Amino acid sequence: ITKVSPAVTKQIQSLTTSGSESTTTETDESVEQTEQPETKKSKFDGKPWYERIYWVTTLFLFGTPLLSLYGILTTPFNAKTYITAFLAYYIAGIGITAGYHRLFSHRSYEASWPVRLVLMLMGTSTFEMSVINWCLDHRAHHRFTDTDKDPYNIKKGFWHAHMGWMLFKRDEEPDADVSDLMADPILAFQHKYYAPMALTLGFGVPTLICGYFWGDWKGGFFIAGIASKVLMMQCTFCINSLAHYLGEATFTDQRTPRDSPITSLVTFGEGYHNFHHEFPYDYRNGVHMSAYDPGKWLIYFLSLFGATYNLKRFPDELFSKGKIQMAEKKIQKEKEALFWGTPLTMLPTYDTEEFKAKTSKENQKWLIINNIVYDIAPFIHKHPGGDRFILDYIGKDATKAFNGIVYNHSVAARNILDTLRVGIYKPNK
Amino acid sequence: ITKVSPAVTKQIQSLTTSGSESTTTETDESVEQTEQPETKKSKFDGKPWYERIYWVTTLFLFGTPLLSLYGILTTPFNAKTYITAFLAYYIAGIGITAGYHRLFSHRSYEASWPVRLVLMLMGTSTFEMSVINWCLDHRAHHRFTDTDKDPYNIKKGFWHAHMGWMLFKRDEEPDADVSDLMADPILAFQHKYYAPMALTLGFGVPTLICGYFWGDWKGGFFIAGIASKVLMMQCTFCINSLAHYLGEATFTDQRTPRDSPITSLVTFGEGYHNFHHEFPYDYRNGVHMSAYDPGKWLIYFLSLFGATYNLKRFPDELFSKGKIQMAEKKIQKEKEALFWGTPLTMLPTYDTEEFKAKTSKENQKWLIINNIVYDIAPFIHKHPGGDRFILDYIGKDATKAFNGIVYNHSVAARNILDTLRVGIYKPNK
Ligand code: HEM
Ligand code: HEM
Ligand SMILES: [Fe+2]
Ligand SMILES: [Fe+2]
Ligand SMILES: [Fe+2]
Ligand SMILES: [Fe+2]
Repeated sequence: ITKVSPAVTKQIQSLTTSGSESTTTETDESVEQTEQPETKKSKFDGKPWYERIYWVTTLFLFGTPLLSLYGILTTPFNAKTYITAFLAYYIAGIGITAGYHRLFSHRSYEASWPVRLVLMLMGTSTFEMSVINWCLDHRAHHRFTDTDKDPYNIKKGFWHAHMGWMLFKRDEEPDADVSDLMADPILAFQHKYYAPMALTLGFGVPTLICGYFWGDWKGGFFIAGIASKVLMMQCTFCINSLAHYLGEATFTDQRTPRDSPITSLVTFGEGYHNFHHEFPYDYRNGVHMSAYDPGKWLIYFLSLFGATYNLKRFPDELFSKGKIQMAEKKIQKEKEALFWGTPLTMLPTYDTEEFKAKTSKENQKWLIINNIVYDIAPFIHKHPGGDRFILDYIGKDATKAFNGIVYNHSVAARNILDTLRVGIYKPNK
Repeated sequence: ITKVSPAVTKQIQSLTTSGSESTTTETDESVEQTEQPETKKSKFDGKPWYERIYWVTTLFLFGTPLLSLYGILTTPFNAKTYITAFLAYYIAGIGITAGYHRLFSHRSYEASWPVRLVLMLMGTSTFEMSVINWCLDHRAHHRFTDTDKDPYNIKKGFWHAHMGWMLFKRDEEPDADVSDLMADPILAFQHKYYAPMALTLGFGVPTLICGYFWGDWKGGFFIAGIASKVLMMQCTFCINSLAHYLGEATFTDQRTPRDSPITSLVTFGEGYHNFHHEFPYDYRNGVHMSAYDPGKWLIYFLSLFGATYNLKRFPDELFSKGKIQMAEKKIQKEKEALFWGTPLTMLPTYDTEEFKAKTSKENQKWLIINNIVYDIAPFIHKHPGGDRFILDYIGKDATKAFNGIVYNHSVAARNILDTLRVGIYKPNK
């Protein structure tokens, strides 16, 4: 249940029916027009730069890598601690992809409350804000992808989409509806107590484990706690930067999201982002069996026990349609790069007398095939069948000879022929 | 300079200008029609079966494998003899591909007389007949591919194209012109003395080498002589069978030739046969740098010294055009397998009143986008944006909402929409 934002009031050009078979496909141009070109006034105009910055976030994002480095360099290596760090990293990542993203943001499946609770807790440890905050940005990102109202608008640059967007205060709240999430008591609780929960789960628990079980308190804090989160954050940030940058436009190139197995490896399986933006309510990201998508695997596995259910899938037919449309576009482009002959509508018409005059009086090397007039002068001496034949047909209709009486020419020969056409033949009755 | 066969007198449907941009592309159907459906009388009708058979050829083709087997089983292994056999095999194969085929049959390049002589001698050792005989069949094969006048017509089966065609006498001589070859004294000489030359080069020389240099007269005869030719013949026969059977229709699927790197390995680089039939006057077969094509390499190498010259190439643009046309065909097929919505021409028209009546009195769940009427009943509860929105727009024009005021829908959403259309909206003025 999405709320219609009253803020969206700009005019959109009402598309008139084009008469072509697809009546609804937007051109890229008209999509551009739904962006907001006005230069708005900012409430920060005239204020000093440091008042625009979210200082807590900024210090956290730049401080944690330094603390990690310090920890790694000064703590003796302990394999158990590093394994714990890896697990903390992976658990947090799955919390984001299977929980924050696919469950809460997109409602691409439903889950029993214990699953919801655990995924929420896993995601909490990432320091990526409460589900409610995260989804507000993310839903706006989907609804307004690549526009000014997209919080991580890649058009403002890779860096902005990756981290920059988090450092500055914004003029407007993201325009999206999260009332469904606010109605969930688990999520409302998390939203309220986010900071203490994140510190406990993100830093406290790994430190405790490493300290209590094998006495590595320092490694627990700096490596299993902080460093694992630093790595994890950089990885998930790639979903907003790299996934809008690297790879194939498999289903549509209307917007920036791209499909890439490389991005997938880095982002816990969120690398098929062209798919995801086109089919956001599908619980999968890498649809193909071979695709690395641990979120998909987990969700599917849990569904076998009824812990998750109502897994949403877009029909395969829609995937095929997208791919077909992209293939058509590609071919169209390749076609446009080649010369296929003067368009028929631009050709002059010749009647019997005019044609005869051209070839006899003006000595043009013209002949007729299928009521089209060809000037074969540039091709006579290149003709693989020899020049004698062609010369015999100058001033005549070579339709039957060309199509089989003498030799049924190849498609390649017909492609050459097309480039030689100079007129349309309208014989006098 | 090809002679126009007076035998070809059948009518060919004169194609009328279709009005589409390509005015010359034959449909598969019309190609079918240039074949010859009449059931002709054979001059062998009523004669006993054994009079139809070429006994010499048949005995040779079936006897040599048996002799090879006998030789291999009864002669002590001698590595030098086997190496000689391999060289004899390879030399003969190159003689066919670079000589008989590309030089003499297709004149795809020119060569100085020593090169012509050597290639002719190399090819002679194969027992595949004189250049003149070979090219007569081969040129007819290209001119009438897949029809009754094609000597190795694959439509008569794999076996017929591979070897069967050589075993039986034919009603008619191949309809092709080889006067250019008959005018060449080297080739006329070979034609006259073919049998003794083939026996000397094919069996005599290898036997002599193995016998004189390391005393293996028997191995020389059976293995370097006969067995190498048996293998060699089976390999080149594959050009007429396998190359019309296995692989990709890269440039056209009008006829049977196919491109396959596997066939190439077996046939001394003649496996890109779809290319070759489409561009027969190109001296290459596997155009791509990575393609196995020793004939191409040899011809090109010799051209560096001027021993071969005037190497013919079709322009790359024609290759691209063929590939593009095939890609288009493939996409067209994929498109036809899917439902893209009722064609606009088959949709009824509704004016303002009719539309209102449908939605109010008849309670239809219809709405309008871009002057097309959609029945969204089957989709309401599947709508990823929720049912409330859609319900709000029943009986109304949702163009602006759908295209961006509320949410600028994806191409996927537009593909769904197309399948729901039920009418064209013509508002009353
Ligand atoms: C003016 C336009 C023509 C073009 C662009 C053209 C093009 C070609 C091409 C590209 C080939 C190579 C084989 C193939 O790709 O199918 C070919 C072969 C040939 N053409 Fe044409 N041709 C033209 C007109 C004619 C006419 C008017 C005749 C006969 C009256 C003719 C007779 C032949 C013959 C006999 C061959 C040789 C077939 C073979 O032995 O393999 N061509 N032509
Ligand atoms: C009747 C035809 C409609 C179809 C086939 C359709 C289809 C879809 C689809 C497939 C999506 C998923 C996102 C996407 O693929 O773009 C979607 C989302 C959405 N649709 Fe529709 N829709 C229709 C009508 C409408 C109308 C009339 C409205 C508004 C008045 C609307 C508002 C929305 C909204 C708000 C979303 C959610 C965007 C988001 O938060 O990600 N839809 N629709
Ligand atoms: Fe995205
Ligand atoms: Fe998403
Ligand atoms: Fe062939
Ligand atoms: Fe050939």
